[in-house]
Amino acid sequence: MNRMVIETSVRQAGNDPIFRIAEAAKNRIATVGKDNVINSTLGALMDDNGNLVTFDSVYSVFRNLKDSEIASYAGIPGTPTFLNNVIDACFKSHRPKGYIRSIATPGGTGAIRHAIANYTEIGDKVLISDWHWEPYETIADENHRSVTTFKLFNENGNFNMNSYKSKMLELLNVQKRVLSIINSPAHNPTGYCLSDDEWREIVLFYTKTAKAHPEWRIILECDIAYIDFTGKNDESRRFMELLSDMPENVLVLYAYSASKAYTMYGLRNGAIICVAPNEEIADEFVSTCSYSNRGTWSNGTHGAMSTLAKITDDKKLKKTFENEQRKYKIILQQRAAAFVNAAKEINLQICHYVDGFFITIPCQKPKMVSEELMKMNFFIVELKNGLRFAPCAVSEEQCKKAPALIKKAMDSIEINA
Amino acid sequence: MNRMVIETSVRQAGNDPIFRIAEAAKNRIATVGKDNVINSTLGALMDDNGNLVTFDSVYSVFRNLKDSEIASYAGIPGTPTFLNNVIDACFKSHRPKGYIRSIATPGGTGAIRHAIANYTEIGDKVLISDWHWEPYETIADENHRSVTTFKLFNENGNFNMNSYKSKMLELLNVQKRVLSIINSPAHNPTGYCLSDDEWREIVLFYTKTAKAHPEWRIILECDIAYIDFTGKNDESRRFMELLSDMPENVLVLYAYSASKAYTMYGLRNGAIICVAPNEEIADEFVSTCSYSNRGTWSNGTHGAMSTLAKITDDKKLKKTFENEQRKYKIILQQRAAAFVNAAKEINLQICHYVDGFFITIPCQKPKMVSEELMKMNFFIVELKNGLRFAPCAVSEEQCKKAPALIKKAMDSIEINA
Repeated sequence: MNRMVIETSVRQAGNDPIFRIAEAAKNRIATVGKDNVINSTLGALMDDNGNLVTFDSVYSVFRNLKDSEIASYAGIPGTPTFLNNVIDACFKSHRPKGYIRSIATPGGTGAIRHAIANYTEIGDKVLISDWHWEPYETIADENHRSVTTFKLFNENGNFNMNSYKSKMLELLNVQKRVLSIINSPAHNPTGYCLSDDEWREIVLFYTKTAKAHPEWRIILECDIAYIDFTGKNDESRRFMELLSDMPENVLVLYAYSASKAYTMYGLRNGAIICVAPNEEIADEFVSTCSYSNRGTWSNGTHGAMSTLAKITDDKKLKKTFENEQRKYKIILQQRAAAFVNAAKEINLQICHYVDGFFITIPCQKPKMVSEELMKMNFFIVELKNGLRFAPCAVSEEQCKKAPALIKKAMDSIEINA
Repeated sequence: MNRMVIETSVRQAGNDPIFRIAEAAKNRIATVGKDNVINSTLGALMDDNGNLVTFDSVYSVFRNLKDSEIASYAGIPGTPTFLNNVIDACFKSHRPKGYIRSIATPGGTGAIRHAIANYTEIGDKVLISDWHWEPYETIADENHRSVTTFKLFNENGNFNMNSYKSKMLELLNVQKRVLSIINSPAHNPTGYCLSDDEWREIVLFYTKTAKAHPEWRIILECDIAYIDFTGKNDESRRFMELLSDMPENVLVLYAYSASKAYTMYGLRNGAIICVAPNEEIADEFVSTCSYSNRGTWSNGTHGAMSTLAKITDDKKLKKTFENEQRKYKIILQQRAAAFVNAAKEINLQICHYVDGFFITIPCQKPKMVSEELMKMNFFIVELKNGLRFAPCAVSEEQCKKAPALIKKAMDSIEINA
């Protein structure tokens, strides 16, 4: 066989599975009409008619930018105002103590890429949870790393501290440095949120471990893609303050995405933010991640940065934006509650859901169940060990109906097995 | 010293030198007024008043997009219409023979990144010319590769075929696969364009070498960032047809950037395009580069893709766009001619300039000359062995004056030496 790419770059053909199922849903809608289809595939906020939600408060600012502000380069690390304001947008009233810096990236993906490429060695294993967003594996693989997993849930459906700690120690012993990614609040795909007490225990574990082994490096990246659609006010950011004042060999990073928070998915805007234990490590972060920008995508979407900067700079704009965001957060929370309650009524088991765009239904043979559901005009993303339902994309009414359909499909698979 | 990044990610602090000099120019303009400053730093097309040129034909289409088209994801490889039309935008009337595919990338930088990451092994050397765009080194380094150079010019100021061939063979013997990047037409920083005859000789060399060593892999990436500002009509694309019908172990890639052609620098839009010798290698290209998208920046700027797609889809829009582009191409060519003629009059030696955004003046101690010029309110980018003048950013009148100032600065350095 004739091959031009290097051996490690040989990939399977075919579309991303999520986009593929989304395509199938779109085609079905064209045939039977959208009222007859539950399309629970893409991770974007949709209104009850299945149209993408776009915040007027965001796009009115974007459209008011001059052409030259959209057209010109933003500078390698990002525009100064964006870099400053994205830190506020990330932490709000729960700013941690430490040396905080930011570098613009294309969405949260770019922030994950920079963390893996710079804070782990080639060949290292990155620690993520067993239930996880699959592209973590792709990003690690693309950068000649791989992932290994801890069990996200214990027998009570809460964070499995033992599994996390033992995996961390196992890896630290071998690699001497470990990057672990924790996707909380509103974990994708389960909707789990670590409690403040769970975070306190993690902080204690880091501190103790790091002090006992000053030669080790512990790097945590918090993936907070969905944070603005969680909780009632800012309480889902309290954990950020807990992750303060770390020993000198612990670094906390945040993958901040403007995709969901600002309905800016297609504008590719986000940041990697560090909370460093000292200035030297903060400066190192800036040099390293700026260089990574230059050596990967050069710079980011200028107009998207300016829009975020302007909204966060102006009290009135910010208020209007936050109100619009809150309105949809409440809609999302009502939809999710409808699903969770309906599931409870019929005893459909789901992973511990707290908040966010996705709910996970653990099941055997997810591919078969998903195919069975497609026959009922219900499109859902299959995971390795379950199904991912997306209340972000489905009306409250359909969220109520969905659990019964899922149960029916699961039962029919079992009967036929 | 306490360090958190891996050893290969330790970088020097400090801004990109080009952006740093541009900043200094901006500050000087604020003090002495823009009529008194020659700002020849950034590689973007400016009008005679020093304002960024933005094409109305581009931004009127962009602003007519629905919010949802800007806000939504474009899909991992890019939108289907963009992927189709960017091939036409790249080749126009000089489409090569071969299996052609495209994948969206953030500007040309992303296309360079994907070529290096997938078509060279870790540790490999990428072949570029001695005069070159410095970020090639950064991109290679960021991906754990490095660069090595051939001499761009022979003693007549034309393409140094001997140097290129011998370096290619030297690398092929060691690595068995070589990616070489040729930035033509309108080479950055010299403005050199390979002639059709030079391309013919390269094609012959590839064919002969590839056939003699079927186990070798020859990959060429043409960086054509400035192609739409060269020549009179489409003749600068004739070489693309020459790069047709290659042996099975030769792959031709194009780094297409919409930054300059569409005045879309800050929208981060471009593509990597392959002209593969067979379908298998074309399919491999699509799988590999899609995977690289997912594992690096996920997807591209949707609104920018839609804008390019709409302009290239509509005859009338396309005509208006091409007329606007041509208007500025002619302005650029007049400015460059003014500089080149003035340089000739006073015997200021420059590299063989044909077309494009930049002209190179080879010189000793470029940093000192550049600093001397700053005292005269003239800001120019220092290279390792010369200065980069940017007619794209400087009025015709100032282009006429610039060579004498450069000569004066060079002479004063020599006198003081």
